[in-house]
Amino acid sequence: MDLFEKLLQDKGPLGRHKFIDDNYYMFPKLEGEIAPRMMFKGQEVLTWSLNNYLGLANHPEVRKVDAEAAANWGLGYPMGARMMTGNSNYHEQLEKELAKFEEKDDVMLLNYGYQGIMSVIDALVDRKDVIVYDAESHACIIDGLRLHIGKRFVYPHNDMVSLEKQLQRATKLTEESGGGILVITEGVFGMSGNQGNLKGIAALKSKYNFKLLVDDAHGFGTMGKTGAGTGEEQGVQDQIDLYFSTFAKSMASIGAFVAGEAEIIDFLRYNTRSQIYAKSIPMPLIIGGLKRLEILRTQPQHKDNLWKIVRAVQDGFRAKGFNIGTTTSPVTPVLLKGDLYEAANLVRDLRTNHGIFCSMIVYPVVPKGVIMLRIIPTAVHTLEDVKVTIAAFEKVKGKLDEGIYAKAGSKGATVG
Amino acid sequence: MDLFEKLLQDKGPLGRHKFIDDNYYMFPKLEGEIAPRMMFKGQEVLTWSLNNYLGLANHPEVRKVDAEAAANWGLGYPMGARMMTGNSNYHEQLEKELAKFEEKDDVMLLNYGYQGIMSVIDALVDRKDVIVYDAESHACIIDGLRLHIGKRFVYPHNDMVSLEKQLQRATKLTEESGGGILVITEGVFGMSGNQGNLKGIAALKSKYNFKLLVDDAHGFGTMGKTGAGTGEEQGVQDQIDLYFSTFAKSMASIGAFVAGEAEIIDFLRYNTRSQIYAKSIPMPLIIGGLKRLEILRTQPQHKDNLWKIVRAVQDGFRAKGFNIGTTTSPVTPVLLKGDLYEAANLVRDLRTNHGIFCSMIVYPVVPKGVIMLRIIPTAVHTLEDVKVTIAAFEKVKGKLDEGIYAKAGSKGATVG
Repeated sequence: MDLFEKLLQDKGPLGRHKFIDDNYYMFPKLEGEIAPRMMFKGQEVLTWSLNNYLGLANHPEVRKVDAEAAANWGLGYPMGARMMTGNSNYHEQLEKELAKFEEKDDVMLLNYGYQGIMSVIDALVDRKDVIVYDAESHACIIDGLRLHIGKRFVYPHNDMVSLEKQLQRATKLTEESGGGILVITEGVFGMSGNQGNLKGIAALKSKYNFKLLVDDAHGFGTMGKTGAGTGEEQGVQDQIDLYFSTFAKSMASIGAFVAGEAEIIDFLRYNTRSQIYAKSIPMPLIIGGLKRLEILRTQPQHKDNLWKIVRAVQDGFRAKGFNIGTTTSPVTPVLLKGDLYEAANLVRDLRTNHGIFCSMIVYPVVPKGVIMLRIIPTAVHTLEDVKVTIAAFEKVKGKLDEGIYAKAGSKGATVG
Repeated sequence: MDLFEKLLQDKGPLGRHKFIDDNYYMFPKLEGEIAPRMMFKGQEVLTWSLNNYLGLANHPEVRKVDAEAAANWGLGYPMGARMMTGNSNYHEQLEKELAKFEEKDDVMLLNYGYQGIMSVIDALVDRKDVIVYDAESHACIIDGLRLHIGKRFVYPHNDMVSLEKQLQRATKLTEESGGGILVITEGVFGMSGNQGNLKGIAALKSKYNFKLLVDDAHGFGTMGKTGAGTGEEQGVQDQIDLYFSTFAKSMASIGAFVAGEAEIIDFLRYNTRSQIYAKSIPMPLIIGGLKRLEILRTQPQHKDNLWKIVRAVQDGFRAKGFNIGTTTSPVTPVLLKGDLYEAANLVRDLRTNHGIFCSMIVYPVVPKGVIMLRIIPTAVHTLEDVKVTIAAFEKVKGKLDEGIYAKAGSKGATVG
């Protein structure tokens, strides 16, 4: 049949919600400088939905360097893929500094995180190899796995007993095939905020021969004594064979990197398809990246502020009886029960009447019947922001519990 | 066995050439402003290797807007995926203007071209659908196909007889499965410079029910009366169901877009994984994109200059008996015969003694025994640049033919 007619028969799990789409829930526009207070539909809102963990997006030194670098280089330079004509001393310098920071031999920059990790996974394995991965891995990892034509075994999130079983299966299989084993997990899981059990995985290395790739998108800059990430936090940075992070969170930019031993990084330079066949990261992002990394390393106050806010948010929500799940990182999900209709009304109430903007996450990202409001604390929030927010959440949770947001709610459904 | 040990047993087709890697052939650094003359290893070279077709990377208006936008917004804004918190009026404006320029209902911006087209392909098809594609499609298309779990049928480059056979197979298959057919090709093929036979493909629409996706990375801005691309050039823009281009060539930036009918673009907004789960294009690139598009539309002199240089290059090489293949676009491959050793010596001679920098493309991108020197003319080259370059090529081709660059060449192998 006609491909497009077929497509439009089912608009997909997110597309089906389009009936509520007026740039309110989907594709909202937060306007003004990136900060705890921004404008949404003409109203000032307190924002808790940007992964600007350390506040670097608007740090004056960052803004100055971003502006100067764009003025000096334009946004086009360098043209071409890194291997062909897209290399520069600055790109190499950022790699060296990231490697030092992550205590790894070498780093390869990736022009974008999503395609970067996909192609890294693709480059590392062939049909003989087995990938073993955490069930809650981010979409970019799943898409990387989908390129793999060999076996892949999944284990339930952080379930070390199941991981070990899968490693046994994988070991048996690769002994026959002559392949190797790659284990993939995340440092901090961006939805739940809990950490991948890197220590538990590392402990299995004494019994099984595998390499460990960790996507630490949310842990880079926020976790560990120096901010080097979740490997540092758990004291197993040296057990992570390939450490990956995007620049899209703490670094408040785009692009990514992968760190590891020199020979493997070198192998990846010559075998990572999305890097060989696509354009290099523009220079202003590299020079801006050097400045962000310098601040991250030399100004620990941003991470300290972040954690001050994180503790206030998490202790505060817990003290008021909220379910914030299993987080052990800045990511703070507030888990409520309700259907999509209730979620939409609750969020509208929060935004309109309380001036609080946070992302609502619904099925299929969380199970049906769960409303996840994800709070992302940053270094530039204040304790007063936290207080106001928790008070507002108490009010809306009260209304939710009373059924006020329900479609047939006795007290009327329309809010805000 | 150990995954990394296994990996290092074979460094891959490009990694094997690492013995000649000192940032000379692989990962070279072209320094200074993007222009026909740049610095390479301390020496000024005439560059023919940047896809800066219209010269916009260094156009003073572009540079001014890039600098201002970065100063006004920083490189971090907006944070988050487009659907969550990464939207803005400027993003929507650029989509509207691109749609108008491409004579399509609507456009979706893509945060990066490589992952963008991969995920677009992924979103369009399920296991029931069949993809039919040109054998010389770019790596990003191939990686998109690799995500497809249904059938895919390849046809030899531009072979319409074979395409029709594959469409017959695909029609039969999808009549049984209830799926649809997606044909994928490119507007301009970046290696050969010849055009996808869009007109021939469009003609098959009267006999077969399929949708056509065209990657026009090299055609956008360079082909057709207005620069709208290869669909316009061949008079079949309305037959292209999804028109894709990166911003990495004529637009001298990063990011990409896909244009098509409103409902399908809307479907893609809610179903394209690399866009739903990864960060939006930073604002300075969007504002810079609006300026680039404006110049592209309102200053036809850049495309005119480009084609003046293209004609001089292609007529000039042909007149001197060079084989430039089947190009019908600005991309100009100069095809010589020799092994890798000869290629390396020839390129070193060209760069060192003639001050001419162009990319050398070797196996596996071209067949073994072929040396491809790819010339990318731009609007900012001069006719004098062309003259000097062809004269230099005559000299090095003479030496190649005499065996001077050969490993055991009687006249000595080391050059430059």
